[in-house]
Amino acid sequence: MARLIAMYRKPADEAAFDRYYHETHVPIAKKVPGLRAYEISRGPIVTLDGSALYYLIATLTFDSVAAIQAALASAEGQATAADLGRFATNGVDIYIIDTVAL
Amino acid sequence: MARLIAMYRKPADEAAFDRYYHETHVPIAKKVPGLRAYEISRGPIVTLDGSALYYLIATLTFDSVAAIQAALASAEGQATAADLGRFATNGVDIYIIDTVAL
Repeated sequence: MARLIAMYRKPADEAAFDRYYHETHVPIAKKVPGLRAYEISRGPIVTLDGSALYYLIATLTFDSVAAIQAALASAEGQATAADLGRFATNGVDIYIIDTVAL
Repeated sequence: MARLIAMYRKPADEAAFDRYYHETHVPIAKKVPGLRAYEISRGPIVTLDGSALYYLIATLTFDSVAAIQAALASAEGQATAADLGRFATNGVDIYIIDTVAL
């Protein structure tokens, strides 16, 4: 399994972010080829040191890192990436990992 | 479901980190009550902007955020947290989230 983790920094307008994310971004992202699962955080992101950098964490699951790279290169992946600029204006940190269960 | 995401910053000695993590930390962390799944990244963490802050991402799954809080408060959780200071010397960023599948 491989995961793309998208960590969205706190937006200026949380309600507008939520609305755009759910109504517009999710439907675009769900069209990405090879997407096996799509999970997001619900409610506050708790940190042990009290920092509050992030507002939303999304984890998208694919079969492999190669599948993620193919997804990002696809027209649907390019559309998803382009859409980030329309609502993730305070930034999003993206990590792509191969994973193993312990 | 709820997840505790531990993002370890790049260590000075990767081989020593790997050895300690697998031989010592994982067995301690696996004793934490309520732990349902334990997944780690394998190989490099790819970023879209080429940044290379993190070396390892671990995701621990529990039934709920309350279960994570109880786990952290337990003797086993306290032992796991104390162990971080023995190998995660360049820092670890921890995020606790309730999650929902889309």
